[in-house]
Amino acid sequence: MSHAGESYVVEPIGWVESPLTDLATAPKQGDEGAPEAWLVFAERFRDGLRDLRPGADVLVLTWLDRARRDVLAVHPRGDVSRPETGVFSTRSPHRPNPVGLHRVGVVAVDGTRVLVRDLEAVDGTPIVDVKPVLGSER
Amino acid sequence: MSHAGESYVVEPIGWVESPLTDLATAPKQGDEGAPEAWLVFAERFRDGLRDLRPGADVLVLTWLDRARRDVLAVHPRGDVSRPETGVFSTRSPHRPNPVGLHRVGVVAVDGTRVLVRDLEAVDGTPIVDVKPVLGSER
Repeated sequence: MSHAGESYVVEPIGWVESPLTDLATAPKQGDEGAPEAWLVFAERFRDGLRDLRPGADVLVLTWLDRARRDVLAVHPRGDVSRPETGVFSTRSPHRPNPVGLHRVGVVAVDGTRVLVRDLEAVDGTPIVDVKPVLGSER
Repeated sequence: MSHAGESYVVEPIGWVESPLTDLATAPKQGDEGAPEAWLVFAERFRDGLRDLRPGADVLVLTWLDRARRDVLAVHPRGDVSRPETGVFSTRSPHRPNPVGLHRVGVVAVDGTRVLVRDLEAVDGTPIVDVKPVLGSER
């Protein structure tokens, strides 16, 4: 490949506000008992949020800033009874580019603050992007 | 927020090799007639790929390096008859952090080269991550 060495800069568009603060006890997936959480966006992105509505299902992309980036194989779900698996076949947070992908339901929208359910990301997690769910992803 | 100014660096794990080279004529979504394409990973990530198998459905995250990052509202699908919509309610490539999310089917695996169907990303697009599809995303 002739591309080696290129890199790109992610600038967070917002941050998660959640009662979850402990990675060890937080749910591993949002449908495993995650509480409601706020997505708090920087003011300058307000216009991008203007069509988010309560009731929508959206995909939230985060930057899992506490993850390790030098890990290529893990025991799925941290269960050492399961064989080590290449990270690209797991949803482990530990991976070369630790982007989290979370499907959440929008509960309420208050300006640049969006309340969602089923988000397992911990308090302070940077938000990278928000996308609508496509039909083929339902 | 007290986090302003933090940023994170994405280092591509690989690149797309596709017959699609023209953004204007490429399909907007992978199920709209995208050809087969190769995901070509850098050698150092080989161990992370070891459990990818033909027949798997995976999510490929890309960095849409030709997108504009200063756009917050677009006409969906570039159709000016549709009202401008906040980018976080669209799948437009143009958005503050232009991460593409693509659900593809693995056709073949040849070392660090993975052949997939239904990928609309154009030739040379950097790959950020690969994740398995979860049950809740089917």
